[in-house]
Amino acid sequence: MNLKDIGEFGFIKRITPDSVNNPVNVMRAIGDDAAVFAIGKNECVVLTTDLLVERVHFIKEAMTGYQLGYKSLAVNLSDIAAMGAVPQHAFVSIGIPKETSIEYLDEIYRGMKDLAKQYNVNILGGDTTSSIVDLIINVAVTGVAKKKSLLYRNTAKEGDVIFCTGLLGDSKAGLDFILKSEQPKNVHEKRLFEAHCLPRPHIEEGLFLANSGVVHSCIDISDGLSSDLMHIAEESNVGFILQEDAIPVSPDLLHYCKEHGYSAIEYALAGGEDYVLVCTADAKKATKLENDFYKTFKRTLYRIGTITKEKKYLMQKNDGTLSDIKPKGWDHFA
Amino acid sequence: MNLKDIGEFGFIKRITPDSVNNPVNVMRAIGDDAAVFAIGKNECVVLTTDLLVERVHFIKEAMTGYQLGYKSLAVNLSDIAAMGAVPQHAFVSIGIPKETSIEYLDEIYRGMKDLAKQYNVNILGGDTTSSIVDLIINVAVTGVAKKKSLLYRNTAKEGDVIFCTGLLGDSKAGLDFILKSEQPKNVHEKRLFEAHCLPRPHIEEGLFLANSGVVHSCIDISDGLSSDLMHIAEESNVGFILQEDAIPVSPDLLHYCKEHGYSAIEYALAGGEDYVLVCTADAKKATKLENDFYKTFKRTLYRIGTITKEKKYLMQKNDGTLSDIKPKGWDHFA
Repeated sequence: MNLKDIGEFGFIKRITPDSVNNPVNVMRAIGDDAAVFAIGKNECVVLTTDLLVERVHFIKEAMTGYQLGYKSLAVNLSDIAAMGAVPQHAFVSIGIPKETSIEYLDEIYRGMKDLAKQYNVNILGGDTTSSIVDLIINVAVTGVAKKKSLLYRNTAKEGDVIFCTGLLGDSKAGLDFILKSEQPKNVHEKRLFEAHCLPRPHIEEGLFLANSGVVHSCIDISDGLSSDLMHIAEESNVGFILQEDAIPVSPDLLHYCKEHGYSAIEYALAGGEDYVLVCTADAKKATKLENDFYKTFKRTLYRIGTITKEKKYLMQKNDGTLSDIKPKGWDHFA
Repeated sequence: MNLKDIGEFGFIKRITPDSVNNPVNVMRAIGDDAAVFAIGKNECVVLTTDLLVERVHFIKEAMTGYQLGYKSLAVNLSDIAAMGAVPQHAFVSIGIPKETSIEYLDEIYRGMKDLAKQYNVNILGGDTTSSIVDLIINVAVTGVAKKKSLLYRNTAKEGDVIFCTGLLGDSKAGLDFILKSEQPKNVHEKRLFEAHCLPRPHIEEGLFLANSGVVHSCIDISDGLSSDLMHIAEESNVGFILQEDAIPVSPDLLHYCKEHGYSAIEYALAGGEDYVLVCTADAKKATKLENDFYKTFKRTLYRIGTITKEKKYLMQKNDGTLSDIKPKGWDHFA
């Protein structure tokens, strides 16, 4: 049997059994944005880790060291944000090919430290080693939260309103420049490129949602809106309907997609690496949540759909017609 | 400037500044076997991480998947042991080349889970991704301890007795078989090979030392006795004298070294990957510590030397003559 046959998520299901020997303090094991374990009576630690491998997650020539360092921490902070926790400490393992220059490595750490400083996060440890061919960066981040304010994936409820905290699809457009070895040629394209290289983790937004008391579930968009929302739906045993017109895409993305004949909605649904949060909230409190969000951040909390009892994944057009959404997110082994 | 010029430890010194933005709960940052941060009033979390890269840390053909999985967790548990903490949760990031068979991956996780079960440790999360050429495994492990019972590197005191909790040098002999592409040909050589592939983390020993109240500092032997003891000495601002005759080497290692014309003491000093603990303890309480250790484990706590005020690293032969010990441990960038 081959990895390709079972896929990334099949593989995760395969390794999950018999992994918890001591469940006493375990609040969340494999299967969420981060694991959660209790320490003492009220406190819990949230821990996430992401492995970035050269030529799989990044191409050295296409990104500055600063961007790479920044992003390798940002993707982890985004997972902590999706749990509604406060990030605290980062641990950086790095595998370095011999010919790597110190100046490039300095830039990686400068990017990481700039972002860490912004969110009052410490780089507290790690591991430093060599690598034969590819540069390897694994970052683990811990966060803290009160036990009762955590946001999980598997707790969406029928009738919930689906929200997202930012624009979707820009990151995929930014990735296009890398894959085509092209340079962004104006300020609009540069913004798309930055959305890919320097994503802002939605930490304040995650804490706001966690403290609202009306958000039932949350995830960050790493694989793509459709895939990530399917994680919420599958684990919560529900379905969803998205409103096509409500999916927030930037004018820059619309322009870019029009110019190249691409579908902006496809970019938003299947792009991935947006690192905004998608959450589901009590429908009765949804309007208040939107208003409070706007008051707090002076930005829109986008209302994009509804959680349904029926386990279907649907897209509704402006004219009311419904169509199935197929999973199109990233699978490392597909 | 090149990495080779500053070495692994020079690189670590280079990245350390400006890494702590929020020192409030930080008890130990970069520079020990593990980082430590406080949660609540009395509790603290200990966290360590180790990155293993194919062709740098292991050769796939020379080790079973089971051994690789076991060892990748064991080296982290050993770091937790060196802090005197109880290991709790492991987080496994794995980067998998396309052609890797599921059966081999199953074996990796079987080895990891067998060891985890033995120490009541959970595998609570991680990351699963692809890799172009090399198999990559990063394991992070958390442990818990009471704040006051932790063991650090930088707290050895003049006059302390130096102990180690197990035999030294076997692992390097075991590695020889891999480097020479030879099979161990008898039960003695097999034991040396196993010392390299399936090292037992000294968790119970670490807890015993932490709870004794008389141990001042501790480290685990990953780079080699001389290098690791130099970490203790440098950070504690002291020196040491080792007694050559007291360095514990196994009959199997003596036999192996005699047969091949190697020096067993060299293997013990500079070999590394033994994953036993080296600690320094109050000289007045040293005999009681030895006796209690023997009563508890029915094994010897080996008394191998003394911490000195003078910052020299010395070896004393049976006839009283002293010679300098040169650092010979592993440096990834040397």
